[in-house]
Amino acid sequence: MGIQQTFVETAESIMPALRQDEVSPLHIVQITEDQEAFQSWRTTIVGKAEDLKERPFGKGDSVILDFGDHLVGYVSLAIKPVGSPPDAPLKLKLTWGEMPCEIAEPFEQYDGWLSSSWLQEETLFVDVLPTEIRLPRRYCFRYMKLQVLDTSAKYKVAFGHIGCTTVTSGDVSRVATLPDGLEEDLAAMDRIAVKTLQDCMQTVFEDGPKRDRRLWIGDLRLQAQANYVTFNNNDLVRRCLYLFGGMRLADGAVGACVFEHPHPHVDDTRLYDYSLFFAATLHDYFEATGDRTTLEELWPVAMEQLRIGANRLDERGIVKDDPTWWCFIDWHQELNKQVSAQAVLIYCMRRGLALAQLLGKGNEAAYIQAQIDFAAGAAKAHLWDNEQGFFVSGEDRQVSWASQVWMALAEVLSPEENAALLNRLVEVSPAIGMNTPYMHHHFIEALFSCGLRETAVERMRAYWGEMMKDGADTFWELYNPDDKKLSPYGSNLINSYCHAWSCTPTYFIRRYLL
Amino acid sequence: MGIQQTFVETAESIMPALRQDEVSPLHIVQITEDQEAFQSWRTTIVGKAEDLKERPFGKGDSVILDFGDHLVGYVSLAIKPVGSPPDAPLKLKLTWGEMPCEIAEPFEQYDGWLSSSWLQEETLFVDVLPTEIRLPRRYCFRYMKLQVLDTSAKYKVAFGHIGCTTVTSGDVSRVATLPDGLEEDLAAMDRIAVKTLQDCMQTVFEDGPKRDRRLWIGDLRLQAQANYVTFNNNDLVRRCLYLFGGMRLADGAVGACVFEHPHPHVDDTRLYDYSLFFAATLHDYFEATGDRTTLEELWPVAMEQLRIGANRLDERGIVKDDPTWWCFIDWHQELNKQVSAQAVLIYCMRRGLALAQLLGKGNEAAYIQAQIDFAAGAAKAHLWDNEQGFFVSGEDRQVSWASQVWMALAEVLSPEENAALLNRLVEVSPAIGMNTPYMHHHFIEALFSCGLRETAVERMRAYWGEMMKDGADTFWELYNPDDKKLSPYGSNLINSYCHAWSCTPTYFIRRYLL
Repeated sequence: MGIQQTFVETAESIMPALRQDEVSPLHIVQITEDQEAFQSWRTTIVGKAEDLKERPFGKGDSVILDFGDHLVGYVSLAIKPVGSPPDAPLKLKLTWGEMPCEIAEPFEQYDGWLSSSWLQEETLFVDVLPTEIRLPRRYCFRYMKLQVLDTSAKYKVAFGHIGCTTVTSGDVSRVATLPDGLEEDLAAMDRIAVKTLQDCMQTVFEDGPKRDRRLWIGDLRLQAQANYVTFNNNDLVRRCLYLFGGMRLADGAVGACVFEHPHPHVDDTRLYDYSLFFAATLHDYFEATGDRTTLEELWPVAMEQLRIGANRLDERGIVKDDPTWWCFIDWHQELNKQVSAQAVLIYCMRRGLALAQLLGKGNEAAYIQAQIDFAAGAAKAHLWDNEQGFFVSGEDRQVSWASQVWMALAEVLSPEENAALLNRLVEVSPAIGMNTPYMHHHFIEALFSCGLRETAVERMRAYWGEMMKDGADTFWELYNPDDKKLSPYGSNLINSYCHAWSCTPTYFIRRYLL
Repeated sequence: MGIQQTFVETAESIMPALRQDEVSPLHIVQITEDQEAFQSWRTTIVGKAEDLKERPFGKGDSVILDFGDHLVGYVSLAIKPVGSPPDAPLKLKLTWGEMPCEIAEPFEQYDGWLSSSWLQEETLFVDVLPTEIRLPRRYCFRYMKLQVLDTSAKYKVAFGHIGCTTVTSGDVSRVATLPDGLEEDLAAMDRIAVKTLQDCMQTVFEDGPKRDRRLWIGDLRLQAQANYVTFNNNDLVRRCLYLFGGMRLADGAVGACVFEHPHPHVDDTRLYDYSLFFAATLHDYFEATGDRTTLEELWPVAMEQLRIGANRLDERGIVKDDPTWWCFIDWHQELNKQVSAQAVLIYCMRRGLALAQLLGKGNEAAYIQAQIDFAAGAAKAHLWDNEQGFFVSGEDRQVSWASQVWMALAEVLSPEENAALLNRLVEVSPAIGMNTPYMHHHFIEALFSCGLRETAVERMRAYWGEMMKDGADTFWELYNPDDKKLSPYGSNLINSYCHAWSCTPTYFIRRYLL
């Protein structure tokens, strides 16, 4: 398939304008080691940021500024010389952190498997002073460290105006105020979730504005759902759908992510579940907007994803499991993804079926219905372990949280059976757990959709609520209340601490709790 | 005095245009440790630079490019991704070196007392590939090291066009071809000296285009002398004279150096000899150009320097020596500068006297003549040690090379006595020697002016000729054939290897040997 240029052009024609705000730092802080603090780093206010203006900085001097909240934007700073005329360049190091760990732990020690180029730092040589510098790259941070690596024996520097011009395509004035009476912690959780979504809303729905700064369809689906109950920037969803629809892999599959620069292009990463989510995301978009033109244009792409997904069913009707394929589901090394993939296929086909019927595509609806029956029947026949009361995945018949959650969402069992399955899941608590807010989202969504509202809220509090207690300004890519330095990348420095797939508490609160 | 705005405006009105040339790298080289090589680093060609284009660079890969000659300019490079679409920024480190030591020795180990900010390096994060980068800072180099610090597991990079746009205000087409018959080594020495001067000729005569990148009057005087026999960019000398004349220290003294950016301003460094050199430089400028307007405008500044210099004479007529004053003469910790300063005063007053007479300033000429007689008489009476046959400096009656050289240039003794003094100097060879090409220049100048042409040429070969054998593309700020890592700054990494005060072999060759 490759490129469908008219789709890409449609996407580019609805490029959003970015809203800007000027933000100044609030405090000078110190960050000290403290085993009681989150990730062992405690932040203490030691002064007002405005007191910085007259403080001279010589070789080796540094300061940490706290902007008071999570920001995405462009940093500018004014620097003036103090003392004799500057007789050598200024060598200045800047470090930005969403979290204190990024400021306190030297990046030189980073040894994770994601590129160290994500760590936000710059070393600048300033030949002429005074100057006002506006850094060309976008940073994502709450904390900013200034380190004067060198001046000369004859002069020091002082920092005048320091600021950040924030950018987002999410207009917060469009987000409805919550009604009185919602419990305070849930209102606070909503606020943080909305901020998380807002900071990820740029010229696409980014997964994380620090990392990977790009459009993944797994994140998009959840961001779109949260967007419909908050910012209502539906053209941004539409733009993203056209980007995915317009640039596909060689066999027509929707890629897992796309890049915008220097021109839109699709990544070569293929994830079984992510391709299928194109159909679910289109379904949700139409449900929220009633935009039939977009639905009609993109339907063939959605239908093709369902066919490609169904092609992986074996003669029994089970998604083939082998060591070579990639299906995301969760960041979990031990998780067998066969059952979850089977469930995602059914889940997405159900949404595709609704769209086919709506569009009056009789043949396609019949095909999808047959595939749903085939796959759902096979799931019950071959993946369900009646003795344990759980779906079992892969050759080793693994029982995991993900498998049960996704099968509940796929509605393979009856509503009562699904509720019983989820209650049993909570009670038995299999060892193969959930690592990401993304997987937790699906658990909560399954609980709400099975009517287990109380457990859902309790679990939201136990997860996102704990992040809040740990100081989250925006919700994180990764969180395990029992292992707070958890990272699938080998270092928590590289984790994203404002991550799209973690923004859904606002969706749950506004959809199910108001 | 401070600012004389009309002088500064005159200087700014004759800002030279910079000539540009595009230069490409020639070779890929390796630099390896070798105790036999200059400063222990041997450079070996291992490939053609053009072979670089298709070579993929991943994390940890690096290459050293040799541009084949010393350059001053702006670097641009094209970078393209190789492999999957880039899914993380490129982290790239660039290091430039005039000499192999700067490439081979990690800057992190630098521990000299000049600012480490002079060491030429940049760490860049490139968010979007492919790209063409033109770095905004000017670099001074022959060697350029590219180090890919990180890409990601999914892609590498390749470097397309790499180039340097050189800049200079020296038009080499104006430099007269040397006549046939000049010995080959002297012709080569002339070429390197001309290149040294050219690379220092920017919008002012810079001392060194790597460091300090600014106008010092000590360098200016020698550059101007070399310029009159080569590039003949006399407006550049004029611009520099007006900058010094237009921005003086509080008591009217000419400052030791001036900065051009962000607007012209004078440094707060005061050097006894450097202020006096304003008069000598103006004298040479008029002699070369006959520009009487400039002479008339700037004469009061020159006259004031002579008065300020003469004010330091004590009741005997000897320049007062105390631990607080600064007089440059040479980079030499042990050198007592009293005799040299006395000689510089006389030397500059002699040139001021010629100007005063030329301008018909009878009173001023009489004042200067009286001061010359007073100071020269006092030198013979109080600084001359008849037994040793040397001038002796300071309380400890130090015998140094500098004292004898400068007294010869000051013409305190008769021509025959001066020649005898210099012959005796070479024969006795006092322990307090000469450390810089700047001081060596004055030695050679003294030899020529006393008619000791053979010794002068021999000494040029022994000094600049040795630099050539050690691989100089341009002549160096510092050189001691017996201590090749010599640096007054604590590290030879920070030495300037293209330095104005080292460019004068072309002056000697073209003035005295053609």
